[in-house]
Amino acid sequence: MGGDFGPRITVPAIVQALKTQQDLRVLLFGRQTDIQSLLPSPADYPVDRLVVMHCEDVIGMADSPLVALRGKKNTSLRVMLEAVRNGEADGCVSAGNTGALMAISRQVLRTTDCIDRPAIFSALPRSDGSHTYVLDLGANVGCDSEQLYQFARMGRAVVKVLEGNPSPRIALLNIGSEDIKGNDQVKLAHELIRQDAQLNYVGFVEGSDLFTDKADVVVCDGFVGNVALKTVEGLARYIIGEVRNVFAGDWLGRIIGWLIRPYWRRIEARLNPGRYNGAALIGLKGVVVKSHGNAGELEFLRAVQLASEYVTKQLSIRIEQEL
Amino acid sequence: MGGDFGPRITVPAIVQALKTQQDLRVLLFGRQTDIQSLLPSPADYPVDRLVVMHCEDVIGMADSPLVALRGKKNTSLRVMLEAVRNGEADGCVSAGNTGALMAISRQVLRTTDCIDRPAIFSALPRSDGSHTYVLDLGANVGCDSEQLYQFARMGRAVVKVLEGNPSPRIALLNIGSEDIKGNDQVKLAHELIRQDAQLNYVGFVEGSDLFTDKADVVVCDGFVGNVALKTVEGLARYIIGEVRNVFAGDWLGRIIGWLIRPYWRRIEARLNPGRYNGAALIGLKGVVVKSHGNAGELEFLRAVQLASEYVTKQLSIRIEQEL
Repeated sequence: MGGDFGPRITVPAIVQALKTQQDLRVLLFGRQTDIQSLLPSPADYPVDRLVVMHCEDVIGMADSPLVALRGKKNTSLRVMLEAVRNGEADGCVSAGNTGALMAISRQVLRTTDCIDRPAIFSALPRSDGSHTYVLDLGANVGCDSEQLYQFARMGRAVVKVLEGNPSPRIALLNIGSEDIKGNDQVKLAHELIRQDAQLNYVGFVEGSDLFTDKADVVVCDGFVGNVALKTVEGLARYIIGEVRNVFAGDWLGRIIGWLIRPYWRRIEARLNPGRYNGAALIGLKGVVVKSHGNAGELEFLRAVQLASEYVTKQLSIRIEQEL
Repeated sequence: MGGDFGPRITVPAIVQALKTQQDLRVLLFGRQTDIQSLLPSPADYPVDRLVVMHCEDVIGMADSPLVALRGKKNTSLRVMLEAVRNGEADGCVSAGNTGALMAISRQVLRTTDCIDRPAIFSALPRSDGSHTYVLDLGANVGCDSEQLYQFARMGRAVVKVLEGNPSPRIALLNIGSEDIKGNDQVKLAHELIRQDAQLNYVGFVEGSDLFTDKADVVVCDGFVGNVALKTVEGLARYIIGEVRNVFAGDWLGRIIGWLIRPYWRRIEARLNPGRYNGAALIGLKGVVVKSHGNAGELEFLRAVQLASEYVTKQLSIRIEQEL
């Protein structure tokens, strides 16, 4: 039910996911009539692998996490998370209210041992063809040094599990590379991470280093990480638009623009924010993937595929083992 | 003397600036022997418009602002700012330590009336061909709501002065557009800005909105702003590199890459981080421009031109009048 477009986007995306992935089974939590009206006729999708779980209540995008936590008990978000906790589902995806997803996940699923607060991570492309894992991307709007330190430990675990890299380089996002730079939380976290011999800590990096191979894991406060990630998306969209404009400017441009299409598509594919939609909420006893609120059908599909991949790789359990 | 490269970059850039701008006169503060050895022979530049002001001491990039403030009195940074205060210079540029520049500027020049802390601003390109002015970009690592509110007022003044826009739209950078989103400082600043009838406040925007025409001024904490700005630079550099790689991949790509060069140069010019080098420290009784520490010759030249433009437009005095 969540996100800017609700079932109009999520239902067709799920139908698509079921068609492309034969071993996928889906429980859809939300208002049955809304969902049913958007499903194709039973002959046109694998009905045996989709179950609609009716929930009358929905958490709005503007509801505060506290209201979501203490309010109605039959919301689609909460009942979905209970299904994960009870083993009825192996993982879950939501495009809804991030604050509510975070708060109810902590209450229903509980955090991984020795982790206080879950974090959202995603992987950004970089110049050597590999990825930089960044966390937190918005689950926590204010983080103390201990939380940043825990994010560093979780980041190490994620890259070990997903990339098979036994000793990923960890960095802290700051506004300069010198020791004196930054706010108190960052300076204190710098000391905490440095003292942990298990972590391959490479020090401070700046925003411009996210796309270079200076570090494999970049740790930051959720506010800063969310702004950085969304700035990346905004700039990518702006550049794609600018390129279209430049080549639409005159008839020669249009011809050349047509010639370069196969090349440009490769670049667009790397830049396309939708390609990176879906970010896991880690540090929880269960696989939870957050989709962008403004995700379209293809982007939401990508978030579902990501959740499925993380379930297969047992991401949540293996992070707990690593910690 | 500042920045990653010191006089090796700044001296040739200044010589270039003197050659291209006939009404420019420059005082260079730093170690005379270092500077002299990098100047061309007197016949090759306008010697009458350049004076070297010898300063024995230099503030290092890793010195803390406190050390810079209380330490040696004959540093190039301090003596330069004193020259601005005493009217010997109309404005100044530094590629040095941002924290020290901020601290000593406040002490020597003093802040504009009713402004507690100066802020760094810059203008980002956006899809409608205009610019979004963003502040603070790193002068303050932690800002309370009152400071954010003052940044909003200064941002309005800057856009009025530089763009002639009588009522620029002001927004606060946040991690969501709903009222409940964000940390305490941002939520409180939201109320303060909203209550000021002089400000054309449009509410919260996200990182992705920096490149759209949702707002003319975007206000944020210096830590967040600095990360966002440097992320933009890093991504721009990454994309330029990716495009080069794609077209260098095969012989057809190389031919097409050659054909599109004039078009791509136009895009590169808009993306080139150096084009946006130089950001003014506003809220001070004097024109102070901060160049990136890693600026090359052309980028530093751009910062000098910007300072010259802001002096001509009387930016500092006009902001004070607007406030």
